[in-house]
Amino acid sequence: MFEAIRGRRSVRRYLDKPVEEEKVLRCLYAAHWAPSAHNSQPWSFVVVRDPETRRRLAEVHRWGRFMAEAPVAIAVVGDPGLSSFWREDLGAAVENMLLAAYAQGLGSCWMGVAGTEYEEPIKRILGIPGRLRVLCMVSLGYPAEKPTRGRQPLKSKVHWEKYGVQRDFEEPRFPS
Amino acid sequence: MFEAIRGRRSVRRYLDKPVEEEKVLRCLYAAHWAPSAHNSQPWSFVVVRDPETRRRLAEVHRWGRFMAEAPVAIAVVGDPGLSSFWREDLGAAVENMLLAAYAQGLGSCWMGVAGTEYEEPIKRILGIPGRLRVLCMVSLGYPAEKPTRGRQPLKSKVHWEKYGVQRDFEEPRFPS
Repeated sequence: MFEAIRGRRSVRRYLDKPVEEEKVLRCLYAAHWAPSAHNSQPWSFVVVRDPETRRRLAEVHRWGRFMAEAPVAIAVVGDPGLSSFWREDLGAAVENMLLAAYAQGLGSCWMGVAGTEYEEPIKRILGIPGRLRVLCMVSLGYPAEKPTRGRQPLKSKVHWEKYGVQRDFEEPRFPS
Repeated sequence: MFEAIRGRRSVRRYLDKPVEEEKVLRCLYAAHWAPSAHNSQPWSFVVVRDPETRRRLAEVHRWGRFMAEAPVAIAVVGDPGLSSFWREDLGAAVENMLLAAYAQGLGSCWMGVAGTEYEEPIKRILGIPGRLRVLCMVSLGYPAEKPTRGRQPLKSKVHWEKYGVQRDFEEPRFPS
């Protein structure tokens, strides 16, 4: 698990190879087991394989090219009527989805949608009702690249007892 | 990893046993390796062990009792200036934190704060600057209970190609 958390990266290039249904369903199942406020499970998922629909989605979103290239694109849909914390609940669900993808040898890319000009066109293409929101699109496929990405030192992000009280410490190591 | 995703639960009762610093840091490190829009890492963390501060936090939040009882409470702080997707980015980070807690034998509980009447009082107690937001509080400790919780059938959450097109399928199984 620690290896998945540390090793997962945004993959934007994919092999021309279909993704097994079983693997897609495991990604969705992982997302569905995320925590949510009062276990409200305020999410649903639209799984898109159809190339023409993916092409239309890709045209709408500035970073959408991956949705045309990846064999699977998933719209992560939130219901604000079920939870006022829907954005963070869905964020937790997406992270589980990406970890499950990585653990199954798949690459994924998370594209933010909620609150952007891409949200309404995507809702129209996928027939998503007005009361619902699209948090993001996730592309899934076998990776054709191995991107690397760093992080700021953890100590710059941690405060002790009060905000502004920081101290030096070594970067933790995950158990192997 | 699948076991952690499936097995993690909100734990609200804790043993009177301190949590090793190393384990707390691993939880934060896991959170820090979450994805975020443009790798903006729009999070920071305030780690609270002081019993008096935890008592004050617990008094503020309706569900805050766990923060007084658990040996560690963590404020998950977001910077909307770094990302307009900060809520979902932090949601992903929190899920990593909870999974890392579970994998180390710790229990945790996620308490929503952003947008509630608890947010300003918590910011005051912890000295968090006005431009920042508190997404949530997370309690950490050795569990004194083993809660269970279910999910709706996955098939009720999945749509195929278009929203509203649903079909029957067996619940996926995670590899063991």
